[in-house]
Amino acid sequence: MAERARVLIDCNDERGLVYRISKVFYDYGLNIDSNREFVDKEAGKFFMRSVITGNFDEERLQEDLRAVVPEGANVRVITPRRKKIVLMATKESHALGDILIRHADGELEADIEAVIANREVLRGLVERFDIPFVYIPADGLSREEHEAKVMEELEKYDFDVIVLAKYMRILTPAFVARYPGKILNIHHSFLPAFIGANPYKQAYERGVKIIGATAHFVTDDLDEGPIIAQDVIPVNHRFDWRDMQRAGRDVEKVVLSRALNLVLNDRVFIHGNKTIVF
Amino acid sequence: MAERARVLIDCNDERGLVYRISKVFYDYGLNIDSNREFVDKEAGKFFMRSVITGNFDEERLQEDLRAVVPEGANVRVITPRRKKIVLMATKESHALGDILIRHADGELEADIEAVIANREVLRGLVERFDIPFVYIPADGLSREEHEAKVMEELEKYDFDVIVLAKYMRILTPAFVARYPGKILNIHHSFLPAFIGANPYKQAYERGVKIIGATAHFVTDDLDEGPIIAQDVIPVNHRFDWRDMQRAGRDVEKVVLSRALNLVLNDRVFIHGNKTIVF
Amino acid sequence: MAERARVLIDCNDERGLVYRISKVFYDYGLNIDSNREFVDKEAGKFFMRSVITGNFDEERLQEDLRAVVPEGANVRVITPRRKKIVLMATKESHALGDILIRHADGELEADIEAVIANREVLRGLVERFDIPFVYIPADGLSREEHEAKVMEELEKYDFDVIVLAKYMRILTPAFVARYPGKILNIHHSFLPAFIGANPYKQAYERGVKIIGATAHFVTDDLDEGPIIAQDVIPVNHRFDWRDMQRAGRDVEKVVLSRALNLVLNDRVFIHGNKTIVF
Amino acid sequence: MAERARVLIDCNDERGLVYRISKVFYDYGLNIDSNREFVDKEAGKFFMRSVITGNFDEERLQEDLRAVVPEGANVRVITPRRKKIVLMATKESHALGDILIRHADGELEADIEAVIANREVLRGLVERFDIPFVYIPADGLSREEHEAKVMEELEKYDFDVIVLAKYMRILTPAFVARYPGKILNIHHSFLPAFIGANPYKQAYERGVKIIGATAHFVTDDLDEGPIIAQDVIPVNHRFDWRDMQRAGRDVEKVVLSRALNLVLNDRVFIHGNKTIVF
Repeated sequence: MAERARVLIDCNDERGLVYRISKVFYDYGLNIDSNREFVDKEAGKFFMRSVITGNFDEERLQEDLRAVVPEGANVRVITPRRKKIVLMATKESHALGDILIRHADGELEADIEAVIANREVLRGLVERFDIPFVYIPADGLSREEHEAKVMEELEKYDFDVIVLAKYMRILTPAFVARYPGKILNIHHSFLPAFIGANPYKQAYERGVKIIGATAHFVTDDLDEGPIIAQDVIPVNHRFDWRDMQRAGRDVEKVVLSRALNLVLNDRVFIHGNKTIVF
Repeated sequence: MAERARVLIDCNDERGLVYRISKVFYDYGLNIDSNREFVDKEAGKFFMRSVITGNFDEERLQEDLRAVVPEGANVRVITPRRKKIVLMATKESHALGDILIRHADGELEADIEAVIANREVLRGLVERFDIPFVYIPADGLSREEHEAKVMEELEKYDFDVIVLAKYMRILTPAFVARYPGKILNIHHSFLPAFIGANPYKQAYERGVKIIGATAHFVTDDLDEGPIIAQDVIPVNHRFDWRDMQRAGRDVEKVVLSRALNLVLNDRVFIHGNKTIVF
Repeated sequence: MAERARVLIDCNDERGLVYRISKVFYDYGLNIDSNREFVDKEAGKFFMRSVITGNFDEERLQEDLRAVVPEGANVRVITPRRKKIVLMATKESHALGDILIRHADGELEADIEAVIANREVLRGLVERFDIPFVYIPADGLSREEHEAKVMEELEKYDFDVIVLAKYMRILTPAFVARYPGKILNIHHSFLPAFIGANPYKQAYERGVKIIGATAHFVTDDLDEGPIIAQDVIPVNHRFDWRDMQRAGRDVEKVVLSRALNLVLNDRVFIHGNKTIVF
Repeated sequence: MAERARVLIDCNDERGLVYRISKVFYDYGLNIDSNREFVDKEAGKFFMRSVITGNFDEERLQEDLRAVVPEGANVRVITPRRKKIVLMATKESHALGDILIRHADGELEADIEAVIANREVLRGLVERFDIPFVYIPADGLSREEHEAKVMEELEKYDFDVIVLAKYMRILTPAFVARYPGKILNIHHSFLPAFIGANPYKQAYERGVKIIGATAHFVTDDLDEGPIIAQDVIPVNHRFDWRDMQRAGRDVEKVVLSRALNLVLNDRVFIHGNKTIVF
């Protein structure tokens, strides 16, 4: 028996959905502490997130909810539990470090299972926090061979989310397809701008007055998945591209951690190539 | 018969409210296009805003909704109509001008009935837009006498909102009490900071790096009502207090117009000295 | 004899420039009220903006300054005078209206000579402000023919700046080349993102969480000139593309007016495809 | 012989200061890489920060500069060296952790000598980074007795800056007077708002839509010293005061680190109760 849950439902839109769903809650004698609903009329899709309290059997509730919503609906009754995350990184520490500190601080509703990196430079930082650091070098390996090793490692963990905290390798479609909706990335730019190798250099050369960062789910294309959060920071002519990079790091880490918390709090629906963030 | 409405309900919280309300919608055969709900658990208050479409008699719907919610509930079924606003101003044109332009542009879901001012300097600007300008000087009058004249003028209009667009006179409690929840003000500061005569001078003297503005409902105390919107703008040591004032005007007009649109779109609940903004 | 000037110098960098320039000021007995200098070391370029007070003959001062800086230097001694601007628009009123209000308000250090438009819809708004409205329709004309008429009209004014306040026609390189560094544009996007026909629709479809606007000088390519100012505004899944457009307008007008004021205050150097903003 | 320095001068304003100072640079054969100057005309004060390169004896340069500026001038020729900082904390880890990560990352132009805390809870975090953690409990001690112990500890280090990274004890005027212009604090609010015990609770109760943080030098009064940096973050009715506190922490750490970097880069002049930030 559970006492509290987040209920997330997304399905084709139909008349009466709120009524039927809230009737189930009512029949169970549950309180709705908060509730948000959104209908994408163009796409004909319904999204709802409720926080409920009371006494209920979560599996039965899930079944009973499923019975009142259209076929193919996604119904999740999520009772309080710490999620598990695996971090992937390369050599930059700002985004990774921010998550490690927040984790150490008890701010994240999750445990960090491990940090997997294709360079060894972050080992010291990670082990300071008593988190397993798994070094999987890519040297001499094809992309597929390297990813096979990473996946083998990932199999050891029962994780909910993979966070690419400045993991600087491009993932193959096969890798991404294996963890749908589970890979979070921070993009070193204000998407869709300056895609490519050195976005800060591009930004510098273009003379922009603002730079930004974008946290998104990873789909086939590394930089093109559903956006969860974005933010920006002002820059000016006195910033060379290294200064822009430095400023960019600050916004990157803030945006990634914000997106991660939204995901851990089950506030994010993926809807095609977009997100609904409640 | 109406085809579309915003339904706003606020009342004491109780189990089953969403169910009972959505059942009414369902029994009427209505679609819920969007729906937001918030429960202030500490205060035991429930707030809900739904946009519904279908075919319904709005008065009957309102009654039927009232029948399923606790006594004392505030139930509003608001069908599409342009609201009416009266602007009050003194001599500064930035906030007033921004609203006039938006109105001329068709952006506001409202008509401007008149501008009432205690100075004559803005007549030219207002009349350019073919809006009646009513000059009610305060010279030689007590505050009560002046307000009596203003109220007499206000009686001529069937307005929904009074917008104080830099109206620089303090309103008496009697005046405010007459239009509860209907008076919108832009405060020349990031509340609760720098209350008083020349906030920009105070901000300059304090050497702040950010200045802001606050749009709020007016209650007894001019600067202390429920906050609707706030925003800020960065400043630096090169700003003298007049520069700060100039920067402040930009943020004032943006914040006031944002708050006005929220109010016109029926997105704002007053909840004690706070607001719920859906 | 002048009493106050802004002195703007940009030239190849050399040792001793500040010394030589400030020596001229000193020999003239001038006060330096403010002074900013920037060296782009990579490009070997020097930029300086000083505000001076005293008593001086501006032409002689300009000559004496020119004598101490490298050949090919750009030296401007700008004494206080209201600049002149010509606005160009099509049918959207938000950016134009904001400038008209600021002008009426005395906020701009400039006079508006005329508004030239390729549609007639804004005539009413412009004439409310007693500004000449010149309607030059493009129907049935080639781009070159239409621009010839616009240039003929422009010849009548002794303007400093052309502001494209949502002028929705693409300018030919010939037109742009005629007014180098004098044409200001507001781009309906956060450059370099979403270039093209309906950026807000693109932004909506991409599901971005922030939209922005960019004010820049126009060079050959309408959207690629030196950036003067940029800003952003948060959006979310509840915004359809029209809502994004509406939000975008607010940021567009703020950014364009900010850039215009910077230009009118002689704070902007063009440096290749970038700007130095003091 | 040095090759690079930051030169900071603040003094009473006089005609010819830039000339005289730049003449010294010129006579030394130095390049001015960047230069910013500000005159507070009201106060009659001159501020200048130059970055110079060349070959020079820093002490002689400092003397020669002093000879050309008014009596009482503050002249600093600062050659490249890592500054030293001592952190003081209590039990919250967000601000401290952010600085530790930045330090580990090589981002700070400084070394951390030690963390002094009046609680022991942060020992683990600090020692992970191989930074000495000094626990000085205040239990049973008067404020003066406790501070005496802290000062005794501080004497061991040759520090440039003390950073109060959420040090939750009020400092006596005697303590503050001992380290003038050297103590940096992060204030848990957007000054001058919500001074007092639980600012987030106050913010919640006031229903603000934005919360902020302020980094400042500490003078007599803990919360009233010269402001270096401020920033804000939007909140809404769904934030209870704990959510506001959490959001506040994010802005606190960003603002404190930004201010710290400004100070380490010698970009901040204290000017009465304000700062000039170049």
